Amino acid sequence: MTAASTPSAAFDHTKYRPVTPVALTDRQWPSRTVTQAPLWASVDLRDGNQALLEPMTVEQKKLMWKLLVKIGLKEIEVGFPSASQLDFDFVRWLIEEDQVPEGVSIQVLVQAREHLIARTFESLVGARDAVVHVYNSTSTVQRERVFEMDRDGIKAIAVEGAQLVKDYAERYPDTNWVFQYSPESFTSTEMDYAVEVCEAVMDVWQPTPEKRCILNLPATVEVGPANHFADQVEYFIKHLSRRDCAIISLHTHNDRGGAAAAAELGLLAGADRIEGTLLGNGERTGNMDLITLAMNLYSQGIDPELDLSNPDEIIQVYTECTNLPVHPRHPWVGELVYTAFSGSHQDAIRKCLKKQQPDEPWQVAYLPIDPQDLGRDFQAVIRVNSQSGKGGMAFLLERDHGISLPRWMSLELAPHVQKASEQVSGELSSDQIRAILDASFKREAPLSLKGYRLDREGAEQLTATLVDDKGEQIALAGEGNGAISAFMDAWQRHTGSTVSVVDYGEHALGEGSDAVAVAFVMLNLDGKRVCGMAEDGDTVSASLKAVLSAVNRGLESSARSEAERAEEAGPVAV
Amino acid sequence: MTAASTPSAAFDHTKYRPVTPVALTDRQWPSRTVTQAPLWASVDLRDGNQALLEPMTVEQKKLMWKLLVKIGLKEIEVGFPSASQLDFDFVRWLIEEDQVPEGVSIQVLVQAREHLIARTFESLVGARDAVVHVYNSTSTVQRERVFEMDRDGIKAIAVEGAQLVKDYAERYPDTNWVFQYSPESFTSTEMDYAVEVCEAVMDVWQPTPEKRCILNLPATVEVGPANHFADQVEYFIKHLSRRDCAIISLHTHNDRGGAAAAAELGLLAGADRIEGTLLGNGERTGNMDLITLAMNLYSQGIDPELDLSNPDEIIQVYTECTNLPVHPRHPWVGELVYTAFSGSHQDAIRKCLKKQQPDEPWQVAYLPIDPQDLGRDFQAVIRVNSQSGKGGMAFLLERDHGISLPRWMSLELAPHVQKASEQVSGELSSDQIRAILDASFKREAPLSLKGYRLDREGAEQLTATLVDDKGEQIALAGEGNGAISAFMDAWQRHTGSTVSVVDYGEHALGEGSDAVAVAFVMLNLDGKRVCGMAEDGDTVSASLKAVLSAVNRGLESSARSEAERAEEAGPVAV
Repeated sequence: MTAASTPSAAFDHTKYRPVTPVALTDRQWPSRTVTQAPLWASVDLRDGNQALLEPMTVEQKKLMWKLLVKIGLKEIEVGFPSASQLDFDFVRWLIEEDQVPEGVSIQVLVQAREHLIARTFESLVGARDAVVHVYNSTSTVQRERVFEMDRDGIKAIAVEGAQLVKDYAERYPDTNWVFQYSPESFTSTEMDYAVEVCEAVMDVWQPTPEKRCILNLPATVEVGPANHFADQVEYFIKHLSRRDCAIISLHTHNDRGGAAAAAELGLLAGADRIEGTLLGNGERTGNMDLITLAMNLYSQGIDPELDLSNPDEIIQVYTECTNLPVHPRHPWVGELVYTAFSGSHQDAIRKCLKKQQPDEPWQVAYLPIDPQDLGRDFQAVIRVNSQSGKGGMAFLLERDHGISLPRWMSLELAPHVQKASEQVSGELSSDQIRAILDASFKREAPLSLKGYRLDREGAEQLTATLVDDKGEQIALAGEGNGAISAFMDAWQRHTGSTVSVVDYGEHALGEGSDAVAVAFVMLNLDGKRVCGMAEDGDTVSASLKAVLSAVNRGLESSARSEAERAEEAGPVAV
Repeated sequence: MTAASTPSAAFDHTKYRPVTPVALTDRQWPSRTVTQAPLWASVDLRDGNQALLEPMTVEQKKLMWKLLVKIGLKEIEVGFPSASQLDFDFVRWLIEEDQVPEGVSIQVLVQAREHLIARTFESLVGARDAVVHVYNSTSTVQRERVFEMDRDGIKAIAVEGAQLVKDYAERYPDTNWVFQYSPESFTSTEMDYAVEVCEAVMDVWQPTPEKRCILNLPATVEVGPANHFADQVEYFIKHLSRRDCAIISLHTHNDRGGAAAAAELGLLAGADRIEGTLLGNGERTGNMDLITLAMNLYSQGIDPELDLSNPDEIIQVYTECTNLPVHPRHPWVGELVYTAFSGSHQDAIRKCLKKQQPDEPWQVAYLPIDPQDLGRDFQAVIRVNSQSGKGGMAFLLERDHGISLPRWMSLELAPHVQKASEQVSGELSSDQIRAILDASFKREAPLSLKGYRLDREGAEQLTATLVDDKGEQIALAGEGNGAISAFMDAWQRHTGSTVSVVDYGEHALGEGSDAVAVAFVMLNLDGKRVCGMAEDGDTVSASLKAVLSAVNRGLESSARSEAERAEEAGPVAV
């Protein structure tokens, strides 16, 4: 503890016991990799819904249902019809209005109690495919403190529930029933006992490899690290006598921030199926986010078997149905997750994007996937603030203004942009950066170009007419191996000062007859470096005007080299 | 893919390659458990800050700094002083205004380039303890596509940076320097090469077990599952020749939602130190959230060595400094994470809380820790909506109104509450639940109690005067083994109807002379069950009024038993 702080008496870690990991021998999962998508099951309309301050209305449930179907979910838990009239009515709507496409199963949750099971089957009359999901809590704490029953008593509840589900299902032979059992609070249950209870349930259901039941292993509360969960899943599977007759399903929560990791490691441990919700809505910290896990697979080249190509639509429906926000840093789909502010990140992204070929695997630093896959453009990728460097500025100028800034020019521009962004304490738009570029490097006073004549006979012969700020004309003449060097020569002859070109760049801006040229120049003017830029419909005029911009800046009494300014402001993050 | 959806052409997983896990033999980490807190380092003021749309002002940086110190962070990365004047000035403020408490080190980031390193040391003049954190990117993609250098070239950058840091540090012998090197994009670097580069850096620095350097392994982008990261860390540590001369630090990002899990598993793999930020601010999806990992340890009975007892203060400063929200489901500290809406969850929590002894380890279902540890009261724990059951209602009535609802009364109340919450489509406050209780079960018309006389001679002799809705008085007389049974007897004599008490409960409400009695009764009135309640300063009056409430409700033409109503509305989730 720091001397500066005294935690409250309540903040006392000694109140808690560490979880005891399961004794797993010959652990296999850490050496495996996931190579295909699991079976997905959505619990948005049940676990997600029950955790909302304002549970969904029927209209919201319909909206969410349609989205889930559209994304490609094949098993959708739609509610707890024995516990809520609204859920009951919603199930009836799904069936009576024929809302369940071929290949999609509706799933309903029910406790292992007869009147609830009876009511549940009532809600499902006429369903084509349905998963009846029965559960009871098996954890030590729940046995001892909630139900006050021993292991056999709790197992008997599960067995009775399983029997009832089986009996009621036989009364409705027209529905294709799948049975699902959850030993609720699985992660806080002794593993041998979890296996024992599930074996007893299977004894009742008598599943076969052709007609499997679902055994769903909930981390109802995430109580340990992801590797412990994977150990539990591997232990469970290893000790289950009829592995081939069960679909092993995982249902993780995010209490320790590890719901996705636990599911991912649980798949390595042999699970077949994943329950979760869009964007992780669900009790307390939420359920496992289906988007996160599916996109994790996607980014590894695995077909996620869910269509997540339009996350903006998902976010819109989710927000409308749950009244919950999506954090700007939410994995894969948050507003800021493809944004690079750091100069070095921006620079690397720009270089990689330039080299990325359409037919080769994605290889772009700082971008685990191409944001365009999710309908995001690069608008969001590179943004400029006081923490950004030349890379970001250059990228924005090129993308939005067609200006290819020479590297040396980026270095010159950077401190101006940084200074501006520190002053506004915020992000700069590409228009603002363009304005800073112009304001910093274009100068048409005191000297401006009135006209020139260029003759090429051996060396380039230049005569140029300038106008100074008093309106007086100045005639110059010089020669060189090009227009600029001839202009340098003329300037030196006229003023007696020493001037040379350090660097120079020019390119067309726009296309066709509207195109103008933009020119950048760095001069060494009496030993000091100074840059200028200009635009003109005529490429030679653009060059000469850029030189004059630099000269004019050099004439400014305060003129110092940009390099010096940069030195004083501190180097830019690159 | 569902028939209903055709993903956009851009959504194509075949563009991506799976990561190749490192070939680790004799893997140790899955069998280990974390038993103590790591060294913590905050990068809120650097990685966190550079990822903001509006980077922090100096004032915001000061606010965040003070919070970090207060929480107990001992190493705090304060910026990139060679890249930002603001960061430079902030470092100077820390040093010149003596803002760094004894035992706290300031850390600064710098690239492996001389003019930046020179400027960095300038910023640190006069510091007592400082960590100079130099980095360069070592990943395959960065080598090939960003730097266009081979392995040796990139290693040379690291070595040169290390040498410069060492040389400059020698110029300022009054500061206690710690050197830190990050092979940036470590997780996308070949592990043998990552080791090679770090060995080369250590060759320069010549750390000893007494004067260790920090080797920081960044998951700059989270590109694989948490177990792969742990494998990489274990491989790295195993192959490092001078393990005892280095502090192994981890810096994870959350691109796949696994930053906390990766850090946790990385600790198992042997790391000593964790870099992260409060609430996971940082580039893109953010850094590892220090609160999550620290609280994960805390909930396992491990001293986190950070004082997180006041998360509301942390959230306030974080929000003020970053302008980012905290998601209501954020692990440990989100607004909703100790809230149980589900009836069965509420019921279990209530039972466990009742049995929880102050001196025993925490054992409460659905609550991994006691919310009071984080300054949260149970206000947030149990909330009632249409998905909630009797457990939640009863809890709220007891906590906020002192009313101990008998279990049978909870069952009667539940459908009324559920109906109301479905109508409002939202949460009900305890006041609303209290109002529903009163409106449903208190009836003073058509019959009210004017007075009574009670004589005990053998059996209880009761005479009571009622007033009907026309103002007419009705005199009753009866006897029984108590006031209520005598009243039943009187009622039967007067009306000829059959009435008996099914259940009854009464308790004091409030304390001392202000205390009133609240009474609940369930009658069987001509074969139908009907409940009533009443309050009165006199316990007998309360009982008799409760009976009259029930009678009055029974007289209502629409009167049916609550059980029947419940039956029709569907069972309540319990």
